Amino acid sequence: MSLQAELIGPSNLSITGVDSIDAAGPGAITFIRSGRFAARWADSHASAAVVTRGISVGGHDPTKRALLIVDNADLAMVSLLKLFSPPRTRYAPGVHPTAIVDRSATIGQGAHVGPHCVVGADAVIGDGTVLVSNVHVGAEVSVGAISTLHPGVVILERCSIGSACILWPNVVIGADGFGYVPAADRRGLIKVPHIGHVVVGDGVEIGANSCIDRGKFGPTTIGAGTKIDNHVQIGHNVQVGRSCIICGVVGIGGSAIIGDGVTVAGHVGISDGITVGAGATIAAKAGVISDVPPGETWFGTPAGPHKEQMRNFAALRKLSDHMRKLKKLEKAALQSGLLAKEDLDD
Amino acid sequence: MSLQAELIGPSNLSITGVDSIDAAGPGAITFIRSGRFAARWADSHASAAVVTRGISVGGHDPTKRALLIVDNADLAMVSLLKLFSPPRTRYAPGVHPTAIVDRSATIGQGAHVGPHCVVGADAVIGDGTVLVSNVHVGAEVSVGAISTLHPGVVILERCSIGSACILWPNVVIGADGFGYVPAADRRGLIKVPHIGHVVVGDGVEIGANSCIDRGKFGPTTIGAGTKIDNHVQIGHNVQVGRSCIICGVVGIGGSAIIGDGVTVAGHVGISDGITVGAGATIAAKAGVISDVPPGETWFGTPAGPHKEQMRNFAALRKLSDHMRKLKKLEKAALQSGLLAKEDLDD
Amino acid sequence: MSLQAELIGPSNLSITGVDSIDAAGPGAITFIRSGRFAARWADSHASAAVVTRGISVGGHDPTKRALLIVDNADLAMVSLLKLFSPPRTRYAPGVHPTAIVDRSATIGQGAHVGPHCVVGADAVIGDGTVLVSNVHVGAEVSVGAISTLHPGVVILERCSIGSACILWPNVVIGADGFGYVPAADRRGLIKVPHIGHVVVGDGVEIGANSCIDRGKFGPTTIGAGTKIDNHVQIGHNVQVGRSCIICGVVGIGGSAIIGDGVTVAGHVGISDGITVGAGATIAAKAGVISDVPPGETWFGTPAGPHKEQMRNFAALRKLSDHMRKLKKLEKAALQSGLLAKEDLDD
Repeated sequence: MSLQAELIGPSNLSITGVDSIDAAGPGAITFIRSGRFAARWADSHASAAVVTRGISVGGHDPTKRALLIVDNADLAMVSLLKLFSPPRTRYAPGVHPTAIVDRSATIGQGAHVGPHCVVGADAVIGDGTVLVSNVHVGAEVSVGAISTLHPGVVILERCSIGSACILWPNVVIGADGFGYVPAADRRGLIKVPHIGHVVVGDGVEIGANSCIDRGKFGPTTIGAGTKIDNHVQIGHNVQVGRSCIICGVVGIGGSAIIGDGVTVAGHVGISDGITVGAGATIAAKAGVISDVPPGETWFGTPAGPHKEQMRNFAALRKLSDHMRKLKKLEKAALQSGLLAKEDLDD
Repeated sequence: MSLQAELIGPSNLSITGVDSIDAAGPGAITFIRSGRFAARWADSHASAAVVTRGISVGGHDPTKRALLIVDNADLAMVSLLKLFSPPRTRYAPGVHPTAIVDRSATIGQGAHVGPHCVVGADAVIGDGTVLVSNVHVGAEVSVGAISTLHPGVVILERCSIGSACILWPNVVIGADGFGYVPAADRRGLIKVPHIGHVVVGDGVEIGANSCIDRGKFGPTTIGAGTKIDNHVQIGHNVQVGRSCIICGVVGIGGSAIIGDGVTVAGHVGISDGITVGAGATIAAKAGVISDVPPGETWFGTPAGPHKEQMRNFAALRKLSDHMRKLKKLEKAALQSGLLAKEDLDD
Repeated sequence: MSLQAELIGPSNLSITGVDSIDAAGPGAITFIRSGRFAARWADSHASAAVVTRGISVGGHDPTKRALLIVDNADLAMVSLLKLFSPPRTRYAPGVHPTAIVDRSATIGQGAHVGPHCVVGADAVIGDGTVLVSNVHVGAEVSVGAISTLHPGVVILERCSIGSACILWPNVVIGADGFGYVPAADRRGLIKVPHIGHVVVGDGVEIGANSCIDRGKFGPTTIGAGTKIDNHVQIGHNVQVGRSCIICGVVGIGGSAIIGDGVTVAGHVGISDGITVGAGATIAAKAGVISDVPPGETWFGTPAGPHKEQMRNFAALRKLSDHMRKLKKLEKAALQSGLLAKEDLDD
């Protein structure tokens, strides 16, 4: 492995692991991606650090410790973490004797179907794909190649998952969307059948306990390369673009359209039918009830452009003081005759 | 099937599927339930549409395409979706050889207990009910007739589920409520035993990964016909009424009382012990910390009546501008002697 | 069992159960922990109540019903609930024939490994610990003594769980944290390997469907005695202290530090890297984006000190009225010449 780094310090240090700048001990290498990290280098016990070029690092003694200057410390970190990864559990090819696989299902070359998995009729599991254990793959489901379905994952009928996907434990794909119509007599609710499905693109990662509902008609779609965190709920017929980042505990209402490269921060809610333009960012905790233009950052509930909202929230912090002053002004205006009592009561 | 529709257009069109107005191609039938949809009819490639009576649809050529005018396009859609549904997976009656069923349990006629399910002592599974796979039914649990428990559903001891219920994957019924008492020496927390249970009425649907905790004493109850979306958390001893709609990522605190026909939108939190009156609506993202009268719509955190809150939120959007003007007024009032500095500092 | 109570009423009542003050019938004992409960005693059908000393209870007839005065009704309730608990399901020691246990795993004395469980290579299950059913324990995982892992729990590689822990159904420990780096060409996202693990201390309870992600490097840690509700998401490298209370649907971002004895109410979000000081309380629905000093109570989004925020939220409730008045003042000031139009437009 080569990091293509410029070295400031000894070239013969023995590095035995990777850790954060505060927790690292001798023998560890760490990362300096901003001035905030650089300021902690002097007190760190790490033996080496990978530093993004252009960050000035104080308190460095090049006779004792090493800095490796790279274009991007975050990318270098990915390489180093791979180097120091403990071996992941290996799953041998084949179908475990306790797995129940329908005779009409197709299991790819080198695929692993682990203990207590269930694979339904006409399902297709791609080459090299791993179903760890207790995974349920319904009828007519297809899963691409070299994907990993962790324990407890459930994919219901007719949904499809791409190649090189990772579904963390207890992910649920293809439950019915949440749709009801009041009965004609207004007493009770009638369930809307959901005859659609879910299509998850290649290279998608879906966090533990997240759910993607099937379409009412047609698919709910997740674009290639999109990353979804834990506890995310995606409603029926939502269209999520490519390379989006959707953080934890987010809920996206039915038929919403999320453009390519959108970032949705934690605990955000997006209403049914909303469009979020490509490259937009929705800040944490926002409740989005109107369309978001491409590239903008929105915040708050109801959400609006971030800058404007932050200014208003800052004003909100002083609101009770301001209101006290407003009352004083009113009183003075009334006393001086500038304003008549009737004017205020209009 | 009869939709009892008035036809505007040819009567001999061949319809092969159902789709949304934008995605539909030739051969598909779609739905027009509002002016918003009607405006898209001219550009749609659908061959036919079901239209709620009274909606005016422009750009319709009755020599080429058909409109079916009905009382309620949403209800007609339910019928059409059923007609065009692909067959759902069929579950043959009987207990799968890999299921572990206690000898004292009762399995109803025509019920399906699928692969890797576990059914505990004295449990009762109703006629025609389906446990798909990997379902855990604890001791003394009862499940009514023709209910479906999807893969990964867990029902713990002594809880009961009604007939015609649908529990989506990984639903958890009957975990202990979240209750602790500080120890007498204030060091640490003592767990409150939860000796109650959960009672889910008939016709209830519970979304994937949702949880309903057991009562501290007595039951947590979900009224008949209530629909619960994915990722919903319902605390100990909550009483949810009949025909409620509870959307995704909602949390309801212990001992709250939710009346009949209440709608709770996405990401709402309702505090412990709160009462929400029958027919009330809680708008998305609200945090409810006081009782909500029947029939009202509430919004915001802390939540209040919707209209009032929306007006205030609209004002909030312009708050920093207003505050700038307030400062100008103060300054002018001070300069003119209308107000003395001491007045403002009171 | 002795409650060390002072008795006001007959000493020979037959008590057959425990219930809430409103639901209790004859034969039941209930609890009065505040004036709010005391006010309902006259109308309650309970035969007896445990009362915290110092609370005055009206409408009590000591010839018919009994009050037991104790130091702390909540602590007394814990004892009484234990006394009246129906028997919990007993799990016999041993490995169920359908469980798949790696030969290199160690199963403690008296431990129960239930149906369809999977225990990986080099895993260690402590004495008396129960894996109910469908539990997945990955390679090199250790679980302490007398812990309970309910159905569907998944613990991935190299994580460790303490003794006397309770993990409710479908809890997921050790999924990868949510970390990506934009590719050098800015097209797509590169996954950051997560080579860390999770360490859960003794006496921790984790609610149904909650998730704790593994560290990027080093552990994510949950301190001894901490209680976590359902649907909680805890990110990579978070450090949660001892005896914390974390309520439902909370999300805690990566590398946040939560001190000992912190209470986090429902639906709260805490951003990446935030520190919450020991003994602090975060009120429901808050979005925390700056550090919280020890012992303080914070509220709102963005969160701030509770008192200040509540005052501002109270002002917000009247904001549109205030703004109307402000406009009147402006108008009057302009008309009287106190203010010039240009002044406002600055």
